[in-house]
Amino acid sequence: MNREQLIESVRSQMPPQRWTHTVGVMETSVILAERFGADPVKAELAAILHDVCKYWRVDEQAQIIRENGLPADLLDYDKELWHAHAGAWIASSRYGVIDEEVLDAIRYHTSGRRGMTLLDKVVCLADYMEPGRDFPGVNNIRETAEHNLERALLAGFDGTIRFLLDKGRKIYPLTLEARNGLLEELERGEAK
Amino acid sequence: MNREQLIESVRSQMPPQRWTHTVGVMETSVILAERFGADPVKAELAAILHDVCKYWRVDEQAQIIRENGLPADLLDYDKELWHAHAGAWIASSRYGVIDEEVLDAIRYHTSGRRGMTLLDKVVCLADYMEPGRDFPGVNNIRETAEHNLERALLAGFDGTIRFLLDKGRKIYPLTLEARNGLLEELERGEAK
Repeated sequence: MNREQLIESVRSQMPPQRWTHTVGVMETSVILAERFGADPVKAELAAILHDVCKYWRVDEQAQIIRENGLPADLLDYDKELWHAHAGAWIASSRYGVIDEEVLDAIRYHTSGRRGMTLLDKVVCLADYMEPGRDFPGVNNIRETAEHNLERALLAGFDGTIRFLLDKGRKIYPLTLEARNGLLEELERGEAK
Repeated sequence: MNREQLIESVRSQMPPQRWTHTVGVMETSVILAERFGADPVKAELAAILHDVCKYWRVDEQAQIIRENGLPADLLDYDKELWHAHAGAWIASSRYGVIDEEVLDAIRYHTSGRRGMTLLDKVVCLADYMEPGRDFPGVNNIRETAEHNLERALLAGFDGTIRFLLDKGRKIYPLTLEARNGLLEELERGEAK
């Protein structure tokens, strides 16, 4: 399956509006990868597939998680988190992606994790700030992303945590770990 | 050592202003214990001791944590968290407290934890809302505590998390777990 066939196949899994979002994440991932020294081909591949099963029925997503040994604790948290892990599994099993770096970038694009790779960060940040996104604080994220990948992503996670606090919803521990990890990188001056 | 001797000994470990706070936590812990069905004697004992080493040098607090097998990851987080675990150790080793429920209430009074006991909740909430506390949202916590222990404590943790987000500081994972646990209890209708 070549790039165009992959794109057509993934496009058919979601409504047109969500595909427009995916195109935004693809373009933004490539820009960020080039800006911060990640592999733009891997970044685009992860972006194409990141939401592959976002519009599948949630019970199908849950079934993929349950039947394939994916982290079962996900099912105790927001459904929004499920498609990322299920999507990495689909990318591997249906589309034959074997690059673990690409699979991780799909897997952690919503929650983040402690010790995010450069590719994880690029795809996760692109998902926050692609041109179609419109939420309070998105312009701050875009401006910060002009020069600091970790600070921009931190602003994204902070916004997510505040949103979940406002809504009285549970916060997935990996998101907190991701934020703590970014703060530690910034303290140590390791940020790219 | 009787109650008065214990009080005198703990009082001598801190400046007068902090002792006034401790008296507030003692009184509030007893009120909350009686309101929500915890043991008021245990609640007061935990409250007397909860800040016993808060004003010890931080390197002493860190040494207690390092030398006695207390959770070493605490040292990667805010110093504000250290006195709680170090204090439980002092309560046990110096003051002979053997009741694990009381020791846990001291140990988790700052961070919280998943699956907090009734006594943990009472002492932690008393620490947030004793009469000397004055921070944005404290009156909302006090009003909520008139009828709902878990919702009041949730408001306390939410405030702590927002404060740490605002300050760009790391958030200790147990505090998130405590909040997630309270939300689950409230969802299941288990709240007292």
